[in-house]
Formats: sequence, structure tokens, C-alpha cells
Amino acid sequence: MILKGKNACKETILAKRPVEKVIFRKGFSDDIVSYVKENKIPYSFMDEHKFDNLYKHAQGIVIYTDDYKYYSLNELLLSEPKPTLVAILDSITDPENLGNIMRTVETLGADFIIIPKSKSVSVNETACKVSCGAFNYVKVVEVSNLSNAIKILKENGFWVAGADMDGEIDYSKMDVSVPLAIVIGSEGYGISRLVRENCDYLIRIPMKGKINSMNASVSLAIILANIISRR
Amino acid sequence: MILKGKNACKETILAKRPVEKVIFRKGFSDDIVSYVKENKIPYSFMDEHKFDNLYKHAQGIVIYTDDYKYYSLNELLLSEPKPTLVAILDSITDPENLGNIMRTVETLGADFIIIPKSKSVSVNETACKVSCGAFNYVKVVEVSNLSNAIKILKENGFWVAGADMDGEIDYSKMDVSVPLAIVIGSEGYGISRLVRENCDYLIRIPMKGKINSMNASVSLAIILANIISRR
Repeated sequence: MILKGKNACKETILAKRPVEKVIFRKGFSDDIVSYVKENKIPYSFMDEHKFDNLYKHAQGIVIYTDDYKYYSLNELLLSEPKPTLVAILDSITDPENLGNIMRTVETLGADFIIIPKSKSVSVNETACKVSCGAFNYVKVVEVSNLSNAIKILKENGFWVAGADMDGEIDYSKMDVSVPLAIVIGSEGYGISRLVRENCDYLIRIPMKGKINSMNASVSLAIILANIISRR
Repeated sequence: MILKGKNACKETILAKRPVEKVIFRKGFSDDIVSYVKENKIPYSFMDEHKFDNLYKHAQGIVIYTDDYKYYSLNELLLSEPKPTLVAILDSITDPENLGNIMRTVETLGADFIIIPKSKSVSVNETACKVSCGAFNYVKVVEVSNLSNAIKILKENGFWVAGADMDGEIDYSKMDVSVPLAIVIGSEGYGISRLVRENCDYLIRIPMKGKINSMNASVSLAIILANIISRR
């Protein structure tokens, strides 16, 4: 993939991900330039006009690197230390939302993210850019069937909580002593019927304003941070 | 201002904000069309090509409405019930961040937001669009001098906590029984020196990943939600 954006590119280079080549916009100045030179990563400087035509919103640097490689659910469930906090994204279609979620999951230290193969965004260039480099560390699993993945999580001791405006349990009151998987639905439509039916219970963030829809990545961040702070 | 976006425009019309006119892209179909007709709000349908040329990323609807009107700090501090939770944005320059913060503050039910006049984004069209209509309800104060505003808040019984990676207090452990103002700095540079010196203490969200910078609006959401859930 072609990754754009200063933060995302810098973090990716520093994460020692294999980088085919780095292209700097002529005049680009940052510590990362000398790092690239010292570490013998292939690079070139490109004329400003050509760069701006080829790469929109790149902030002066792009890198050519491998596509994101998904993890296997079974492999992650067998890993040590055992995962205890997972995010499941149901029908999130906005790559910026996914990128923000990847960043939040990585910084807070939740274990991994599950996304469905169809009707969902994938870990694409935009998601990687928005994740500010978190994509180099965060583990994402892509599954054919979310309900089946939820079944496997339950067999592995997870409780599955769906985030829903009308959830019966206040998110800050749920039992956090067990392994938890938090399901977040799309902003427009929420969690799909079948996935919702597979949740052990639904949790809500109390909404006290006149607007009652919260950004999906913000909701998830609030719930994950609360679980982590109470553990 | 010219407001774009389906959610933002719908919420603004339903909030009964004075709307000079609504322009729909030809073929736009939604309940809001009949609402506009029934409530005798001036509207017109515009040819697709012309609309797309004039209004980028408008999702088929724009409205012409008044600019955002800021509130006065003294007025808000005198209002009943007394405010007890305030967000202070130091040097946030990204209008999408401000819009997300406005949405979060409104949905969680925090009292108001303070932004500085200079070196800061203002409540512009982009912030209003991203706020998904929350700008119709959320109270924002624009001040000439943040340090002075912090002084006034302290005189009114507020404790001022700055969010900082190296803060001495875990955000989930701070005393939430007192009126609180939470200061969030810009993503790149954090809280400015003078404002930081005026904080009563610095709080941190424990970062457990390799990326240690969290989106400003996500950090603020986590801190505000935690305070509200513990009150």
C-alpha cells in the first residue's frame, strides 16, 4: 500500500516495518530524513508540483509498504498472556472511524479488534493513515461470520456486550472481572439484529443531551477506558 | 454560515434554529423535505450538477443559517443549576476535533467549552457539520486569555486539571466531588506552558501501547465520561 501522512509514515518507519521506498516532497525537513538515510531505506525527493499531483494530503511524505496482514482469531486466543479485552466492529464502513479505533485500542492496550469481511471497512490506506502508525502494532482479525466469531469467543470464556443506546446495563456498572468483547455498531444503524441477539447483554452510555448519537470510535474509547480503569 | 451535511442540517432544522433557506440537491429524499414544506421554511431544489459544483461533501442538503453565537463566561457561571464540568481547549486548531468535542460534550451532558480567541479553531462551518447538530445546543465561550479564564473559574470554586501524558494523577482517581475544568492541549504540542502552570494538577490516561499519543477529542471524552460516571 501507499501510506501518506507525516505521523503515520514516521511511526511506520520507526516500527521497522519493511518499507519498499520513501518519497519525500522536495524541501521536506524532519529528523526522519536522516533516520531513513542512516538506515539505508530506499528514498527519493520528488519535485513539489509532481508530488502534490500524485499524492493528496500526504504532508510531504509517502511510503510504499506491505498491505496490512490480518491475524487469525484462533491464534490470538491461544496466545499468552490470554486476551481479556476485545473490540468487535459490526458494519463500521468509515475508514477514519476504523483508524481512530485502531489508535485508541493500541494506546489503551486492549487486545485486538474483530471486523467482518463483508459490509465493513477493511484496514486500508486511509485507516492506516488515521491510526497514526498504530496499525503497525494493533491486531485486527477479519472474519467471514461475526456470529460465529462471537460463538468462539464465548467458548473461550468471553462475555459479549453490545453497545446500544437502549442497553439495559450502564457501561460503568458491568462486571469487568471476566474477559469481555465489546460490540460497536455503525453510527447510522447500530448493531445488526443477528449480532445483537448473540450478545450476552447490551450496555449503554447514559446520554444527557438533546443529540443522542455518539461517534462510534468515541463510544468504544469511553467503554474500553472504563473497563481498563476498573480492572 | 452555510451548513452542509445531512445530519447537521436535519438536527439544525429540527432544533428550530432560524434558517434563511434550505437547498436540496435535485432528487434528495428524506422526511426532512416534508418537514421543511410543512413548517414553511424557504427552500429550493437545485440541479445536481450545479449543486455538486457549489457544495462539496454536502450529502444533498445545505442550509443558510446564522453564525454560531458564543456565550459569556460570567453569564454561564451565574446560571442555574451551577455548572460543575467544563472543557478548556488549549490551541486545538483542527475544526473536526472541535466538532467531535462539541458532539461529545453535548451527548455526555458536560456544561460548556472554553476556547481561546487566538491560535485556536473557532466554531466554524466544518466544526458545526462534524458536531452533527450538537452546535445548536452546546455552549462555547471564546475568551481573549485562557489564563484569565482559568483564574475566574478558580474564583468560582473550580479545580483545573490539565490532561498530560506525564500527569501525576491517574484520571480515574481524581476527586470528582468538586467542580472540575479539564484542559486539553493540541495533539502535537500539548498544553502551553503558561496554561499548564495555571492548572491545579495534571492528570494522565495510562497509555499501554507503543503509540503514546491519543486523539484530543478521544482523550477528553474518556476523561469527561469517567467523571460523570463517578459522580
